[in-house]
Amino acid sequence: MTPSDVLRSNANGLHSASASAAQEPSGLFTFSQQVDSWVVRTAKPVSYEIRVTDDVLDPSRTDLLEAGSSGERPGTRARRFVVVDANVDLLHGDRIRAYFDHRGVDHRLCVVPAEESVKSFETAARIVQEIDAFGIARRQEPVVVIGGGVLMDIVGLVSSLYRRGTPFVRVPTTLIGLVDAGVGAKTGINFNGHKNRLGTYFPADLTLLDRCFLNTLDRRHISNGLAEILKIALIKDEGLFRLLERHGGLLLEEKFQGLSSTGELAGSETLRRAIHGMLEELQPNLWEAQLERVVDYGHTFSPTVEMRALPELLHGEAVCVDMALTTVLAQRRGMVSEADRDRVLTTMRALELPTWNDLLTGEILATALQDTVRHRDGQQRLPLPVGIGGAAFVNDVTARELADAVAGLRSLQGREVGR
Amino acid sequence: MTPSDVLRSNANGLHSASASAAQEPSGLFTFSQQVDSWVVRTAKPVSYEIRVTDDVLDPSRTDLLEAGSSGERPGTRARRFVVVDANVDLLHGDRIRAYFDHRGVDHRLCVVPAEESVKSFETAARIVQEIDAFGIARRQEPVVVIGGGVLMDIVGLVSSLYRRGTPFVRVPTTLIGLVDAGVGAKTGINFNGHKNRLGTYFPADLTLLDRCFLNTLDRRHISNGLAEILKIALIKDEGLFRLLERHGGLLLEEKFQGLSSTGELAGSETLRRAIHGMLEELQPNLWEAQLERVVDYGHTFSPTVEMRALPELLHGEAVCVDMALTTVLAQRRGMVSEADRDRVLTTMRALELPTWNDLLTGEILATALQDTVRHRDGQQRLPLPVGIGGAAFVNDVTARELADAVAGLRSLQGREVGR
Ligand SMILES: NC(=O)c1ccc[n+]([C@@H]2O[C@H](COP(=O)([O-])OP(=O)(O)OC[C@H]3O[C@@H](n4cnc5c(N)ncnc54)[C@H](O)[C@@H]3O)[C@@H](O)[C@H]2O)c1
Ligand SMILES: NC(=O)c1ccc[n+]([C@@H]2O[C@H](COP(=O)([O-])OP(=O)(O)OC[C@H]3O[C@@H](n4cnc5c(N)ncnc54)[C@H](O)[C@@H]3O)[C@@H](O)[C@H]2O)c1
Ligand SMILES: [Zn+2]
Ligand SMILES: [Zn+2]
Repeated sequence: MTPSDVLRSNANGLHSASASAAQEPSGLFTFSQQVDSWVVRTAKPVSYEIRVTDDVLDPSRTDLLEAGSSGERPGTRARRFVVVDANVDLLHGDRIRAYFDHRGVDHRLCVVPAEESVKSFETAARIVQEIDAFGIARRQEPVVVIGGGVLMDIVGLVSSLYRRGTPFVRVPTTLIGLVDAGVGAKTGINFNGHKNRLGTYFPADLTLLDRCFLNTLDRRHISNGLAEILKIALIKDEGLFRLLERHGGLLLEEKFQGLSSTGELAGSETLRRAIHGMLEELQPNLWEAQLERVVDYGHTFSPTVEMRALPELLHGEAVCVDMALTTVLAQRRGMVSEADRDRVLTTMRALELPTWNDLLTGEILATALQDTVRHRDGQQRLPLPVGIGGAAFVNDVTARELADAVAGLRSLQGREVGR
Repeated sequence: MTPSDVLRSNANGLHSASASAAQEPSGLFTFSQQVDSWVVRTAKPVSYEIRVTDDVLDPSRTDLLEAGSSGERPGTRARRFVVVDANVDLLHGDRIRAYFDHRGVDHRLCVVPAEESVKSFETAARIVQEIDAFGIARRQEPVVVIGGGVLMDIVGLVSSLYRRGTPFVRVPTTLIGLVDAGVGAKTGINFNGHKNRLGTYFPADLTLLDRCFLNTLDRRHISNGLAEILKIALIKDEGLFRLLERHGGLLLEEKFQGLSSTGELAGSETLRRAIHGMLEELQPNLWEAQLERVVDYGHTFSPTVEMRALPELLHGEAVCVDMALTTVLAQRRGMVSEADRDRVLTTMRALELPTWNDLLTGEILATALQDTVRHRDGQQRLPLPVGIGGAAFVNDVTARELADAVAGLRSLQGREVGR
C-alpha cells in the first residue's frame, strides 16, 4: 500500500489510508486491521516583519517592545532577556540599559563576545543557561538580540530550540546583519569544522533595521557587508550594481550615515534595493524546498574557504573571493563579457574586498564542491552570473575548468584592470 | 507605522508596508524613503506518514527504503545512514545488517547506547560527526533511526538541525515509541537539568510501526508504554480505558504479540485507538500554537519529577505518578467520581505502574508547576480528567490544593482500592 491510497479522511485533515474501507471503532472489539497507515497533512503559517527604524534605542520609541507582552496587566511588568554582542555593549551598552530602564522593563542583559570562531554550540549553550536562570514565558516574552550576523544566527538557533521555539526580535548592528543575516529565516552554528552545519529556519517575529549602529562599525566590516549587497546586484539587480560601482567608495567612507546628500541618497537606495531583492528571493522559498537559489551565488566554495581561512577571511570576504572566481569562470564560458568581468573585479577592489586567496587550490575547491553538491542534494546547481544582473545554474563544472578559472583569476591580480 | 499598514504587495506575497504609497526603483536615484517595512507571509507545507508494517526487516519488504533515493540511476547505489539503539543492535543487529546488505544499500550503522541520561547534546553531536564522516546528500538520503523514544527524539533533533533539515525515517522499537514518540513531530534533548529543554517540531517523513520489536522489550518498558496509552484513554477515549481495564494484564503478558486470540484482538485495537487518538490531537495543533493540549495530561509535574528521579523513574512511570495525583485532584473537585478514581488507580496498578513517588513534595510540585506555567506561556492550562474519557483545563490550582491532593493520594496507597 502506498500513501496515495487514502480512502477516508476526517474533518481534521487526518487521513487513514487503507486498502479497503476502514471501520471506525464502534465497540470494545471493533477492529480495523485494514487501517494500516495514517497520513498527516498540514501547513505551518509563518509571518514576520522587517522594519526600518531610526534610532531604535531612543527611549520614546516602542518598536523594540512591540512583540510580546508589554506588561499592561496589573501587577505584571514586561520582561525581556536581551543578548548583546560584546563590542556593541562597549559602544552602545549604556543606551541599551537606559532604554529598558526607561521603559520599565525587567530585563537581563546577556553579553556575548561574538565572532566567527565562537559561532558554536558552546556559545549557544551558555545563552540557554542564562535564559533558564532568568526564566521567560514561552510566547509572550521574546528574546531580543542586538548584534551582528554571528550573534543573530546563534540566538536565532537558541530561540528556535528553546522549548521547541520561543519568539525573538532582532536588531542587527552590522551591515551584513542589516542586509542579509537579519532579513531571512536562517539560523545556525558551525560544527565539526563545517560552516553552519547545524541550524534551523526560524525568522524573528520582528527585525528592526537601524543604520545608526553602522557608525561605530569599522571600515573592514562595512566592506564585508558590501560583498553581500554586491552578490544581490550581480545576480539580479544591475541598477544596484551601478550604485555600488559609482558610489561604493563613498558608502564605505560614510558608513551609510548620509553625511553628504549624495551619500544619503546612494546609501538609502542601496540598502533598500539590497533588502528588497533579498526578500524577493527568500519569500517564495523560505525553507529552500527549491535548491536552485540565486542568492547562493558566492556561497559554493566560500563556506569551505571561510572555515579553512579562519580567522583571516570574514564571511563577506570569502563570498567575494568565490564571486571573483566564478565571475572569471562565467566569463570563460561566454556568459559574462571581459568588460563586465573587469567592471566587477574593479568594483570589488573599490569596495576594498579581496579578489584572491591562496586557498584557491584544486584540492580545496574539489572538497568545497563535493560538500556543496551534498548540500544541494547531489547536483552542483551552481549559480553563475549572466552579464551583470542575471544568473543561470550549471551542473557540469569540472576540476579542469576550475583550475583554468583559478589561473585566469590569478593572472588578473596585481594589474589594474581596465575601467 | 504598524504591520497592518500594508499598502502594496507583489505577486510573490511579499509586502512592503508604507505610510504613503511606495515607489518602485525605476532609475539610479529613485528613492522610496516611505517604504520602511516589509512583511513576509508564507506557510510551510508538511506531510508525513505513519504506517503499520509487519516484520519491517524482512528482506523482501521495501518500506524502509521507500523514502529517499533507491539508487536506480546507473552507477549509483542507495546510501543510508542508520542509527540503532545499542540494545536493539544486540537483539536485532544481525537482521538489520542483513536487510541493508540484501537490498544492496551502501550503509553505515551508528550504534548508540540510549536511555534518558544520555538524551543530551553530546550524544547528538557524536551522531552528527558520524554523519559528516559518512556524508549524505541533503534530501535523497534520509537518516534512518531504529530505537526507542530517547533515540528517536535525539535523531529527530539531529535530522532537523543537520544542514537545517535532513529527512528521516523512524522505526520505533519500544511501546512508547510505537504509540507516542513515533507518532508526533516533536524532537528533543534534555539540557541544563530540564527535560526536553531543546528541541524542534520535525516529523519523520515515514514512520514504520512494527510491533514485533516489542517481543524483546522487558516487561517494565511495556508498562511504561501503557502509561501513555492510558493517558489517551483517560482524557478522550473511555472505550480504550475499558480495553486497558479488562485486558491490561494480558497485554503486558503477551507484549502485544497476539499469542492468544483475545490478546491479538485487544492488542491491535489498543494500539490502533491509541495512535489514532494521539494523531487526532496532534494533527490540528502540530506546532502547539494552541497551548491547551489534552495530550499534555500527565505532563504537568512529571517533567520535573522524572528529571529529579533519574534514573529511578522511566518517562511513562513519571507520567503515571502525575496522572494518579491529578486524578485525585480532579476527584476532590468533583470532576471524577470516587468510583472512577478507584478504577483508574486499580488499572494503573494492574498495568504495574507506580501511583506514588516520594518526590511528590510541596517544594518539588511548586517548582514543577512554575516551570510548566512558563512552558504554557504564563498560565497553568492544566488538563484534568472529567469522568473517564473527558478533560477540562483549569488555571487555579493552588499549593494548598496540591498538598491536599498529595495527602489524598498517599492515603490511597497500600490499600487495595475497591473494584
Ligand atoms: N542567517 C543568514 O541568513 C546569514 C546571512 C549572511 C551572513 N550570515 C552569517 O553572519 C555572520 C557574519 O555576520 P557579521 O559580519 O555581522 O559578523 P559578526 O557578527 O561577527 O560582527 C562582526 C564584528 O563586528 C562587531 N560589531 C557588531 N556590531 C558592531 C557595531 N555596531 N559597532 C562596532 N562593532 C560591531 C562584532 O563584535 C564583530 O566583532 C557569518 O557567520 C555568516 O555566516 C548569516
Ligand atoms: N517525541 C515525542 O513526542 C515523545 C513522546 C513520548 C515520549 N517521548 C520520549 O521518549 C523517551 C522514552 O522512550 P522509551 O520509553 O522508548 O525509552 P528508550 O528509548 O530509552 O528505550 C527504553 C529501553 O529499551 C531499550 N530498547 C529499545 N527497544 C528495544 C527492544 N525492541 N528490545 C529490547 N530493548 C529495547 C532501550 O535500549 C532502552 O534501554 C523519553 O525521553 C520521552 O521524553 C517523546
Ligand atoms: Zn552569506
Ligand atoms: Zn510523554
